[in-house]
Amino acid sequence: MRQTFDETTDPSFGPTHLPLIRQAMAEQGLDALLVPHEDEHQNEYLPAANDRLGWATGFTGSAGAAVIFQDKAAVFVDGRYTLQVRDQVDQATFEIHDLMNGGVSAYLEAAAKPGQAIGYDPRLHSPDALARLKIAAAKAGAELKPVPLNPLDAAWGEARPAQPAAPVVPHPLQYAGEESAAKRKRVGESLTAQGASAAVLTAPATLAWLFNIRGGDVIRSPLPLGQAILAADGTARLFLDPRKVTPDLPAWLGNAVALERPEDLPQALAALKGQKVLVDPAQSSVWYFDALGEADAEVLRAEDPCALPRACKNPVEIEGTRTAHARDGAALTRFLHWLATDGQTTPPDEITAVRKLEGFREATGALKDLSFDTIAGAAGNGAVVHYRPTERLNRRAETGSLMLIDSGAQYLDGTTDVTRTVAIGEPSPEMRERFTLVLKGHLALGRVRFPAGTTGSALDVLARQALWAHGLDYDHGTGHGVGSYLGVHEGPQRISKSPSPVALKPGMILSNEPGYYKEGAYGIRIENLQVVTEAEAIPGGERPMHGFETLTLAPIDRRCIARDLLSEEERAQLDAYHARVREVVGPQLEPQVRAWLDEATAPI
Amino acid sequence: MRQTFDETTDPSFGPTHLPLIRQAMAEQGLDALLVPHEDEHQNEYLPAANDRLGWATGFTGSAGAAVIFQDKAAVFVDGRYTLQVRDQVDQATFEIHDLMNGGVSAYLEAAAKPGQAIGYDPRLHSPDALARLKIAAAKAGAELKPVPLNPLDAAWGEARPAQPAAPVVPHPLQYAGEESAAKRKRVGESLTAQGASAAVLTAPATLAWLFNIRGGDVIRSPLPLGQAILAADGTARLFLDPRKVTPDLPAWLGNAVALERPEDLPQALAALKGQKVLVDPAQSSVWYFDALGEADAEVLRAEDPCALPRACKNPVEIEGTRTAHARDGAALTRFLHWLATDGQTTPPDEITAVRKLEGFREATGALKDLSFDTIAGAAGNGAVVHYRPTERLNRRAETGSLMLIDSGAQYLDGTTDVTRTVAIGEPSPEMRERFTLVLKGHLALGRVRFPAGTTGSALDVLARQALWAHGLDYDHGTGHGVGSYLGVHEGPQRISKSPSPVALKPGMILSNEPGYYKEGAYGIRIENLQVVTEAEAIPGGERPMHGFETLTLAPIDRRCIARDLLSEEERAQLDAYHARVREVVGPQLEPQVRAWLDEATAPI
Repeated sequence: MRQTFDETTDPSFGPTHLPLIRQAMAEQGLDALLVPHEDEHQNEYLPAANDRLGWATGFTGSAGAAVIFQDKAAVFVDGRYTLQVRDQVDQATFEIHDLMNGGVSAYLEAAAKPGQAIGYDPRLHSPDALARLKIAAAKAGAELKPVPLNPLDAAWGEARPAQPAAPVVPHPLQYAGEESAAKRKRVGESLTAQGASAAVLTAPATLAWLFNIRGGDVIRSPLPLGQAILAADGTARLFLDPRKVTPDLPAWLGNAVALERPEDLPQALAALKGQKVLVDPAQSSVWYFDALGEADAEVLRAEDPCALPRACKNPVEIEGTRTAHARDGAALTRFLHWLATDGQTTPPDEITAVRKLEGFREATGALKDLSFDTIAGAAGNGAVVHYRPTERLNRRAETGSLMLIDSGAQYLDGTTDVTRTVAIGEPSPEMRERFTLVLKGHLALGRVRFPAGTTGSALDVLARQALWAHGLDYDHGTGHGVGSYLGVHEGPQRISKSPSPVALKPGMILSNEPGYYKEGAYGIRIENLQVVTEAEAIPGGERPMHGFETLTLAPIDRRCIARDLLSEEERAQLDAYHARVREVVGPQLEPQVRAWLDEATAPI
Repeated sequence: MRQTFDETTDPSFGPTHLPLIRQAMAEQGLDALLVPHEDEHQNEYLPAANDRLGWATGFTGSAGAAVIFQDKAAVFVDGRYTLQVRDQVDQATFEIHDLMNGGVSAYLEAAAKPGQAIGYDPRLHSPDALARLKIAAAKAGAELKPVPLNPLDAAWGEARPAQPAAPVVPHPLQYAGEESAAKRKRVGESLTAQGASAAVLTAPATLAWLFNIRGGDVIRSPLPLGQAILAADGTARLFLDPRKVTPDLPAWLGNAVALERPEDLPQALAALKGQKVLVDPAQSSVWYFDALGEADAEVLRAEDPCALPRACKNPVEIEGTRTAHARDGAALTRFLHWLATDGQTTPPDEITAVRKLEGFREATGALKDLSFDTIAGAAGNGAVVHYRPTERLNRRAETGSLMLIDSGAQYLDGTTDVTRTVAIGEPSPEMRERFTLVLKGHLALGRVRFPAGTTGSALDVLARQALWAHGLDYDHGTGHGVGSYLGVHEGPQRISKSPSPVALKPGMILSNEPGYYKEGAYGIRIENLQVVTEAEAIPGGERPMHGFETLTLAPIDRRCIARDLLSEEERAQLDAYHARVREVVGPQLEPQVRAWLDEATAPI
């Protein structure tokens, strides 16, 4: 099994580890220390060796921070984690605060005392975030001090897991679809257009995409941790731990890419003296800005020049992702068949469901990893948006309830992410009504046509309007970008209420995942991935329009649908989708499962 | 008649006036002069005395600029005016450039020569726009120079119309709904909350709202031109031309508002030395920032503190606007009846239609002014979004065509703005299809429910999705804010593709006006005003939701509707709207017109 169900921290972490951290702080003359969730690579997912916040506090959510004073400490989380943090963190040791609405800055301003020295590790903070914290500390008369060695790392010492060193391997052209040299040439040209002669690249997904390589340093995504300097002429220096360099790699990278050791990076940055160098403040910590400043380089703060090219998948990547979804859809359909047969007579617990699904994916023979830990939420657990089953929380599905299963896989040819909500026994009329409202939003966002230049924020309302009309809503975004055998969360594209300047462009893959959550009772989410299609002329129309092609192929539980709430157009859209599922997935299935799929995808 | 149909400029303006301007420039040692469309009050509509761009070039659009060198000159307009500018401006005298995509800055950078002095009038430029122009001039080695007296004004001389001096009168509480003292108190508190001790207010609509006064300095909106300084304690100094002060005004303003002369403003600004003073860079020219800078005041650049309170109408204003719309709806219905009877047998020309409609509004006895010049566009003229009929362009409606009529009125109790598109004879199937697509968008935006915090940009797609699905779109915003016996275009609220951070709040009035335009053939627009309603619990729902109440009451031409394209929900919505029109407008009408309205609003 790839997924585990134990908890990696417990509330004793704070009381046990804080004295060690405070001692290391005192040795450096620090009155306080900032502990962000982010690591040196500003990743969403962290290698165990870099989960400093988890080790210091016990909190393992995907966003947060802590501030440790000698005589007090506080942990900061957002609204998604208010329950989890109370479960994981010792509240006699840590005050718990809201990460939003002032967050760490407001706390620093109130809690710091004049003359205090507050340590921060410059490798862990983005320049913008740090600037805000500096102002807050200054208002309290305290000062932020960069630490050469993080006292938390010193305190962690021998107990700290080793830095990951998973092999970095070529990602063949049959999946990547474009030579690295061609990518480096066009990104280099975009640097020239911005007046820059080089870019410092620190996002692992950017290294993976630009050099057509994959690694395994971070669980659930094939990312190589490292850095690169790309010159405007397309040549590059790639800094990778030599332990990760596989024999084929140097030849794969070619002569225009110099493979170097991470410890040589500071010198390489110093050599950019006098040049105009692009760095993305959202991806790179203040350490890079400081180093380039000291080198007298001119820093151009701009978006990672690979972000947009990476987001717009090429035809080979799109064809690959179609193949991946056809394969993944068959595995998921086998699981849904199991849940609709055995699962109805003996409702499973969440962990059993997760294992079963992983088994079907493993049986494809193509599974490289899950794309994230499967969420299986029975009844009320389904209403916890960031739920992940553990041995302690594991719950058996009950007849007359819903089970929400959000899962995905990493294959060489593509990354999947899909949510289905399934009735165990007979769903209530309320469940049916709300499932159908979510479905209406999902369908509206699936069939929309839109002109070039339209952003994801402009489309978000389509997924919510049916819920809004009934006084309902959901508190998460509607769609995130998805990579091609890369991160399951990828920018810059997204579909959400928060304003985004990023136009949706052909080749971008996004999730379409409206939901509804009734606390303590059940959760509903319907998620497909869809790719933005080239603008096409519409018969009788005047302007070419983009649209979406749905990639995910698995039945949507018809037993949960209140048919009367669907318009004729919506019924036709659902039936056409189910016909495609039948056509593509059906032939891959065993006769018994295929017969079930035929029924499950019959016209509504 | 209030509306006139002559043209106030012609292409001879450039060749005639440019030599005069150039001579005045030479007298001040200037190589070039910037001529923005904006005047001292940064208004959308200008008094004739301030239409410098029109006098210099002949161009009368609502946005634009010119740059006049001694040996060349250029005029800049946006995409809406590319046809009109060629009609109005002598192209031997002026090059014509795009106002967007670089605009004046790019031109300056390319056209200015090292050492040249380029004059600008600091009263006419916003600080942000001027900063961009300064950089552009510097790149060319030239320098921007503020002029104490605008050479264009000097050249205009005796021929220039007088500055308007319309009487400023109290706007009674029965319409305003809140005492000026109460408004000044709460705006003053918002200044304190921002750490400011005063605000410089220059937007005429802000003066009108804050002091409960109305003027007549600008055609089509009851605006008093002037300035004010509001202190955080709610006291104020109001600078108005003494000729405009009516006898009742000082008592109406009370002791806490000092009435002062415009020439005393510089001294009053100088007296703000050492204070933190709020100024809105979108509303106030660089002259104010310079003056406060010289006074050693600390300038806080922030939104006009009256903009949001003014946008959120109070219950008295909302009730007033309902009354105004009921009255205006009756006038418009009489016009639509005329167009549906006499107008069908003898199709009118545009000017006749405009006069007829004005006559019906005048006959209410309550008309203070039109809220803008009526647009009546027959056939192809209806496809010109910013069309206004003139004697030269006037066109007779033809059988088998559409006529678009966009009009509005200023009443003491409210401002209206409404567009109806009417078939003359039998509309074609294509006209019907497209009318119905526009109607579907209009209805969707009318019935939406949405949570607090939702912006107009988030809702815009609702008005477009039916058109997009057919490969169609329109190139203007979907909704603008509307004042209460104030500007028919009012910020900060709007509904459009361009991202807006402004949440729609209860009491905001917005237009809902999707359209479709077929060049050379016909234009379709359906526009109602609607007010954001308080968030209400929806039966069976969990979260309170805002919605819209439609204010405009006039029939939508059922002959233009392709009934089959409407869903049952849409038909019910249209029928319910028409029933309200019948109920509110019907009793005000003559028997013959009422009988027609009953038919025109029968269920679809």
